[in-house]
Order: sequence, then C-alpha cells, then structure tokens
Amino acid sequence: MFIYDNWYVAALTTEVNSEKPLARMIVGKPMVFFRTDEGQVAALEDRCMHRGMPLSAGPICNKGRSLQCPYHGLEFDITGACVKAPSQTSIPRNMQVLTYPVVERDSFVWVWTGDPEIADPATIPRTTLGEPDTFGTFNLAHIEYKADWKLIYDNVMDLTHLAYVHTVVNGDVQANVEAKLTISTDDDGKRVSFVRKLPDSIPADQYKMGFDFKGNCDRWQEIECSASGMLIWTGAMDVGCGALDGNAGAMETKRTGGFQLVSYHAITPSTEGNAHYFASGHVNVHLGNEEVFAKMREGQMTTLYEDRVILEPQQARLNETPGRPVVSLAADAAGLAVRRMFKKLLTAEMEKKAPPRPARSSGHQDLMVELTGGAR
Amino acid sequence: MFIYDNWYVAALTTEVNSEKPLARMIVGKPMVFFRTDEGQVAALEDRCMHRGMPLSAGPICNKGRSLQCPYHGLEFDITGACVKAPSQTSIPRNMQVLTYPVVERDSFVWVWTGDPEIADPATIPRTTLGEPDTFGTFNLAHIEYKADWKLIYDNVMDLTHLAYVHTVVNGDVQANVEAKLTISTDDDGKRVSFVRKLPDSIPADQYKMGFDFKGNCDRWQEIECSASGMLIWTGAMDVGCGALDGNAGAMETKRTGGFQLVSYHAITPSTEGNAHYFASGHVNVHLGNEEVFAKMREGQMTTLYEDRVILEPQQARLNETPGRPVVSLAADAAGLAVRRMFKKLLTAEMEKKAPPRPARSSGHQDLMVELTGGAR
Amino acid sequence: MFIYDNWYVAALTTEVNSEKPLARMIVGKPMVFFRTDEGQVAALEDRCMHRGMPLSAGPICNKGRSLQCPYHGLEFDITGACVKAPSQTSIPRNMQVLTYPVVERDSFVWVWTGDPEIADPATIPRTTLGEPDTFGTFNLAHIEYKADWKLIYDNVMDLTHLAYVHTVVNGDVQANVEAKLTISTDDDGKRVSFVRKLPDSIPADQYKMGFDFKGNCDRWQEIECSASGMLIWTGAMDVGCGALDGNAGAMETKRTGGFQLVSYHAITPSTEGNAHYFASGHVNVHLGNEEVFAKMREGQMTTLYEDRVILEPQQARLNETPGRPVVSLAADAAGLAVRRMFKKLLTAEMEKKAPPRPARSSGHQDLMVELTGGAR
Repeated sequence: MFIYDNWYVAALTTEVNSEKPLARMIVGKPMVFFRTDEGQVAALEDRCMHRGMPLSAGPICNKGRSLQCPYHGLEFDITGACVKAPSQTSIPRNMQVLTYPVVERDSFVWVWTGDPEIADPATIPRTTLGEPDTFGTFNLAHIEYKADWKLIYDNVMDLTHLAYVHTVVNGDVQANVEAKLTISTDDDGKRVSFVRKLPDSIPADQYKMGFDFKGNCDRWQEIECSASGMLIWTGAMDVGCGALDGNAGAMETKRTGGFQLVSYHAITPSTEGNAHYFASGHVNVHLGNEEVFAKMREGQMTTLYEDRVILEPQQARLNETPGRPVVSLAADAAGLAVRRMFKKLLTAEMEKKAPPRPARSSGHQDLMVELTGGAR
Repeated sequence: MFIYDNWYVAALTTEVNSEKPLARMIVGKPMVFFRTDEGQVAALEDRCMHRGMPLSAGPICNKGRSLQCPYHGLEFDITGACVKAPSQTSIPRNMQVLTYPVVERDSFVWVWTGDPEIADPATIPRTTLGEPDTFGTFNLAHIEYKADWKLIYDNVMDLTHLAYVHTVVNGDVQANVEAKLTISTDDDGKRVSFVRKLPDSIPADQYKMGFDFKGNCDRWQEIECSASGMLIWTGAMDVGCGALDGNAGAMETKRTGGFQLVSYHAITPSTEGNAHYFASGHVNVHLGNEEVFAKMREGQMTTLYEDRVILEPQQARLNETPGRPVVSLAADAAGLAVRRMFKKLLTAEMEKKAPPRPARSSGHQDLMVELTGGAR
Repeated sequence: MFIYDNWYVAALTTEVNSEKPLARMIVGKPMVFFRTDEGQVAALEDRCMHRGMPLSAGPICNKGRSLQCPYHGLEFDITGACVKAPSQTSIPRNMQVLTYPVVERDSFVWVWTGDPEIADPATIPRTTLGEPDTFGTFNLAHIEYKADWKLIYDNVMDLTHLAYVHTVVNGDVQANVEAKLTISTDDDGKRVSFVRKLPDSIPADQYKMGFDFKGNCDRWQEIECSASGMLIWTGAMDVGCGALDGNAGAMETKRTGGFQLVSYHAITPSTEGNAHYFASGHVNVHLGNEEVFAKMREGQMTTLYEDRVILEPQQARLNETPGRPVVSLAADAAGLAVRRMFKKLLTAEMEKKAPPRPARSSGHQDLMVELTGGAR
C-alpha cells in the first residue's frame, strides 16, 4: 500500500544524465529517467507501449530528446509520445507511454506518482534549512532497504535506538533514551514534527569531530516529517549557550554556532516491502575541509548500514509472524503520530479512487486478447 | 497455458543416449528420456510411481530397456510398466508411470504432450527443405529462455527487430524495417506462413561470409510457423537473379544459388514463463568447410543470446505491469496471425477437455490420504 | 501442517550456551534458545514484542538471565517478561514474549510447541536403550533437509532403501529388501514399532568394522517411532547366537554381544516443506577408540547426506506434480502405519482447536492499525 498523491525523491540529480537512462522502480511503477542536452529531466514509464520492453535498456537519442527502444527501435520523447516507428510512416495514436511530473530541486529529482492534475511543486518539502553559506554538504547518497517504507519512518522517529544501533552518534546513552518528546501535527495533516532536548549530556564522537566542546553539551534533535521523508536538524552547544532555546515546533528556533547537522532522509517505496533511502548531510563546521567531510560521510553511511542490519531482519520476522501483535512505548509517540498521518492519507486516497482494475497473473494475457485493432 | 495436443522438440537426438537419462520439463510435465541399446528412444514421466522420486536420478539398466529408481530400486521399462520391485515378488497392477509418444526425426527427438489417441507422427512439421545434398548443417543447439513461448514467436515473426537487436544479420537496416509482409494461414488453422522481400539491399555480414555478392542483393525471408516452431528460409542473390521470384506462400518458390540459410527454431514451453529453444542451421555454401561453419554457428548462437537479452527483461516487465496494454504495429501482422492461431488451438483444447483436477498445494497430501489399499 | 502438542528436539545441548543466543525455526515458530549462567535453558519467541526484531540478533545479558533486543535495548528474561525498557521507567503490562516449555535430556534440548497446559516431560520419548556403560556415543549431529518431515519418516520406516541409497550399511542387498516386517501400534496411538530380521546374511562394512564375524550373520532392525523421531536399534551376531531371539515388539528383546548400534533420529519440522534432522549414534564396541568412532561418525553422516540427496529432489518432484498419485508396496506397511498415526494426531488437534486467525499478507499491517493505546 502506497501513498500515490505525493512527491518522492526518485534520484540524486547527479544520477540523471544524457548519456545513459536511469531505471528505477517507484511505488511499484517502473520508471526511466534521463536528461535532455538542454538539461531538462524527463520521467517516463519504463515500458515500451509496443511490446513491453524496458526503455531503459535502450539508448538516449535525438540530442537527449528521446529514448529508443532496443527491441524494434521505436522512439519516445519526453512527453511520452512515440516520435518514430521505424517500420512504418504513420504512428498509432495510442502509441504513448506514461510520463510523470518531475522537478529537480535541492540535489534531488522529485517525481509525483499520483493524479497529475494535482501535482503542485509548491508542496515539495524543504530538505535544508535554507542557509547555504553557513552549511557545507558532506554527503548525498542512495541505498536500498529490503524493508517497508513505514519501518524506516518508525526507525528515525524513535531516536532511542541511537543508543543501541549506532556508536558514532550515540554519545550519552542514558540522556538519549530519556529525552522527552514534543510532537506537533500540522493542520492539514500532512506533516508531523518533533523536538527532543538532551541537556548536559556527553557529546557523541561525531559531534566532537565537528566542535571543540568544553565539557558536556546541551543537545537538540528536531525532525519535520512528511510522506516524502524527514528533515532532521540535530546539534549541540556548550551547556547553557542556547541549544535548548525556544519552545516552538521543530525548525522554528534560530541557533548559531556549536555543532549543527542538517540532513534529509527521503524514503521512497520501490515495491511492496522494499524502499529507496536517499540521504543528504550538511554541517556548519569545517566548511571546505574535505578530510573531515570524508569522515562525516563515512559516519553517516555507517549509520544507514547499521539501521539496515536491523530493519531487514525485522521486516522478515514481521512477515513470518502475521498474527502476532506489537506493543508500543512512550518513545513511539512520534512514530505513531506519523503512522496516523499515513493512515489518514492512505484512507483518503482509497476513498477518492475507483477500485483499481484487478491484477492479472500475466501481463502477457494482454497480448493474447489484443488480436484485432492496433495494427495499421 | 499450453497447447498439449502437439508435437514438441524435447531434445536433440545427440542428447539422448543409453548411458545417462536426460531429465527435461516439457509443458509443465517432468519427463525423462533414454535410449535402449537397440537405439529406440523412450519418454517416461520422470517420477517413480512408488514415492515420486525422479527416475532420471537413477541408472539406465537391463540393456537400456529400463530405468531404475535410485530410492528403492524399482525398474520401469519403456512402456512405463514396473518390471521389478525388489522387495516383493508380485508387482502392483497400477505401479505404472506415464509414457509419451516419441519420434526421432531430423536431428530432433519429438514428444507428443496431449491425448495419445490422436498422436500422429505425420503431423510433425518439416524442419528442413528436404535437400540434404545441397545444404550442410552448421549448427544444432539447445538453450533456455526465461520467457514465455509466445514472446519467442512474436520475436521471430517480427523481423524488423533484426535491425536493432542483431548486428551480424541486419545488413540493410532501412530495407529490413520497411520490407512488406505477405501472410497466409493454412485451412486447418494450424500453420501460418509469411514472405518478406527486400529488394536491392545491402548484404548482411553473415551473407557476405557465404557468398561473393557483386554489390547490393535481393533478399528474401520466409517463415512457416506451427505450434511446434518455425522453419525459416532466408537468403539473397545478386540483384535481379531470382531471389524475388514467386508469389506463392512461404517455401513454395524454388531457388538455386546465392546464399541460402535454412533453420528450424523449435520453441518448447518448459514451465509457465519459461521455454526451451532448439535451433538448427543449414546453408548451401562452403559445404564441408569447418572453419566457415564454426563462424556461422557462432553467428547463429550470438543471435539467440542477443534475443534472450531482450526477451527476458521484456517478460519480467510484462509480469510487473499486468494492467498495462500493448499497441501493435503493421509489422506485427504475422505475429498476431500466429497468436490468433494459438488462441484458437488453446480454446479448442479447453472446450474439448473436462476441467482439470484442482491443483493442490502439496502433492504430498496424496501420501497423507493414501493410507489404505496399495500395499499388498 | 504440523503436530503442535508434541515434544521436539530443538537443539543439541552443546548448541545452547550463555555466550550467544541460538535462533531456530520450529514448526513455523521463530524461537531463540539460550542458557543462564546457572545452566538453565530458556526458549523464547524470537521476536521482540515492541517492534518485531529478532531477539537472537542481540546479546545475552544480566548474567545469562535475559536477552537484550539489539534495536531499542529492551530486555526479556527467561519467563518472557520484559525486565527493562531503557527509555521509560514503567513497563507496559503486555510487553511480554512467548515462552516454550523446554527440557534438557539425553544430549538434546526438547521443546513443547503446543498447549503448555498439557506439556508433560514424562512423554518425552527415550532416545537410548538406557545402558550407558556398555555403549559409547560416536555421533551427535544436526543437519537440515529441504523436505517435509513425513518424507523423512517414510524413508527410515522403509529400510529396503538401504540396498540402493547406502553402501556402508547395506551389506546383503537381497536379504535387506526381502526381510519381513512385524509392526505394532501402541494403544494410545502415539507410537509405532517394528522389527525386521535378516537371517544368515552378509555383514555390512559398518558391521565388520565393529565386530569380527566368523562368516554370515543374523541381523535385526528394530524401530520405535513417535511424532518426535525414531529410536533405531540394529545389529548382528554370528549365525545362531541370539540375534533373532524374541517375538515381542521392538526394543523388548535383550541381546548381549555382537555388533549393536543404537541411534536416535529426531525429526523436527522447521517450516512447511523443511525439517531439522538431529541424529545420535551409540555402539557397544570399541568403546573409547576415537579412531574407530571417527569412522563410524563419518559413516552415519554419509548416510544422512545420501538420504538428503534422495529426499530433496523427491520433495521437489512431489511439489511439481500435485495431481499425481503414489502406489505403495508391502515394505511401506510400517511407513503407512506411521502416517496413519500422524493423521490421527493431526485430525485430533484440528478438532480440538478453534480455527486459527486468518493469515495476513503482512504482519506490518498490525503496526498500521495499532495506533491507539500501547504507548504510555
């Protein structure tokens, strides 16, 4: 079950070029991404309308303006229209592949997977705090999880796991598991935010790499979560220096100095039980120091792999034990608020839509019945 | 869905011997093939009637006249009868495995998978043009495709793919995709034929290897297709030298000289979504020149592998997108005629037969209920 | 389909320690085994009640008294109770994992998989003949079969396969396949026994390794079978020296001398179509001779692997041919008696139990609906 009326990160901008198409499965839909010579990104259904061949297996042609099917040479442009059918002069009107609204922003290629009529780029969530001068980017990555997208949200929204799963960022175990949550849900029900404050706690190794603390630190963790992913702002300052200021929601308090880490965690379902994980990382320290940035990149990647080592067996076990319940803790409050948000969005979409056409066991049956018409 | 009342190539004759049984899955039925010392080929159900063990895992015994089950030593002869049950003197009347009508012809072992009452060897299709003296065989091969049998027919029946998938045989790309089709279906609805003519076209590399053309060539492509496979006769002559003669159906025009290639492409479903591909290749040039023949063999195998690189992802994509349609082109006319033929054959079989016994999840349930009788 | 109200061997005692938890799937239930520092064995559901993480991926803690979940650090003691939830002071009442009755006996860890109210250790079957002084143990092993548990019982209960599958123990092929069976079923329908006698037969290699026969031998094979496994007593003496004494059921006749082999074959279903096989081996000869024992161990392991080479393809073929019957022989009488026993036990359990909750495709749905309550 996926939320379709949503913007998802489909790729890092650096993954999409005019040399080679990028195939990617998003919410169960096979898509192919490429870039015209003028730099525009296109998102097409990765399936030739003629006989179902993945277009991503063919070359980009016509100055980046179209994809050529590797089977019979049909070409489709960025509007999905077939612009060449080599074996005939006219092109069937319905020889057209699906396209998806696509926007390039903030190092990511975003794709809208639902009703194109309501695709509004203004609803793409922010993925940074918008201060490019004072932050430097140390990481942009894509990895895949054999786990349901919702398990990844649970994971991030319950940061008490840091103390057990991650060493580089855990710092003060007890402070971490005990920090209290303040949760808020937006009026439109499409965004959940939370703030946690960890006063007078031992700095994590990653933090000490970034800032020379005098002793213990005041630490904050703020998350802004939508169905696209999570913007995470964490950091620490010397005790009493402003880290714990502010009572507003996540991302509302201005802070300067100390160690600050802003990252975006885009979670994009691929198929049922599998997800793409796109991560960015930005810090306010050591700007331009490639050596420190390499260590921070390694640190962030390590946390992603450490989480995957947990979530994949967790998913497998949940699959194996369908009748067994789960029990929540106070620390799950944020994750449960997020799941409530997802449930409402899913329910609203299901009510909006007509029942989908029943799945058939073999798409090839289509070829079996499609015996009249079409050919011209 | 398979057509059962049909002859399928099960093996190359060279694959079946009296040393070691050959296991092969044909239209979802596990079969085992072996050869008696006198040279007769036998086709048995590859499943001991006692406890289900594959007989192909045991030895051929009794001078090639029977197979011994490796589990408890039961022996079954070429009629499927149990001729030895070591632990007792009498043999249960129903201790009998299925056999399949089998005929050895034209380098192939043919098996009939349907109602044995109507198995008529006269309906085995021809696989050569019957002129052994003027043609030499450069290839006989078996490979497997993770693709439905019908996709392979589509592939061969739409030769406009040559220009995109195959380099060795494409020659004149534009002539190839533009060549017009003449299609005919036999009165009994069991054979579709087509003829394509490519006048004044650039010879393909494979053709030039076979014949020293003065310049461009006239080229023909003729296919005769049944539910067993496709007989393909292609070739080229110098422009105006007779390649384009004849208006009759495929295989009706006599031609001498130039470069001529006759090949049979037997397509045998193994399981749902998987197929065996048996290919032969015969040419009218360089007879006895093993070096040229080796190159031609390599060329034919290359085309088979090139097609597989297309069809396997195509099959996977069709499986992933069950609700999506396909749109045909004029060049699909032959393929669609073939699919119409298959559809009629499948429908006729379904109407003829009583509904099959419902599949059960575990054949082993049989053992669970089969508690009385049997033992004696 | 499994028999749940039953004791199964879950592990060799040597596999369960206080260093590292042992994960094992038993009758479709994920279990984790560990040992307290005091030596007590615990069997828990291998699934954290909080979010489903396998507990076996975490450490044993608290002096072997509990398991720590590697995700958020929750700890569960040997009663299944959560004794620590690091992020909060109180622990939800229902934060409790399942436990299974577990007993350590005769080199094996036994687990009861059904209704704990009726778990009676007195019903654990004997796995030796209870004469430790005159027998030495040469093997204790665990291997896994990709075959249904019932196929393994069939295998052992029809010893006519020895002549075809096993070389080391076959000895006199003809005597083996011809030996007559005496079968008895206990009054409570929970045990089937059989005796086979092979007079004046050629000693098997394994037997000659154990005893210096004067010539041919009298040989016996006795098996006592329950839903936990099979106790097998085989052996041979010089002709006329007492091997064929006794007309009582299996294990009832006392014999001294000659070569005697006692082994237990515990068959524990893991998932549908897969099973654990635990084997022990004890002989009355060469006690303390590690060199001979090593050869005997190798011999027993060889027979297990030889059987697996048969049973796994057999299982695959049975799965592929659900509509096809099997036909039994006289030698199947013991196996069929055992299957009758299993069928009665399965039927009795099904009638006793309420229908199980319908399986859901994703256990994760639980998290989706479990949005209120729980958190505190």
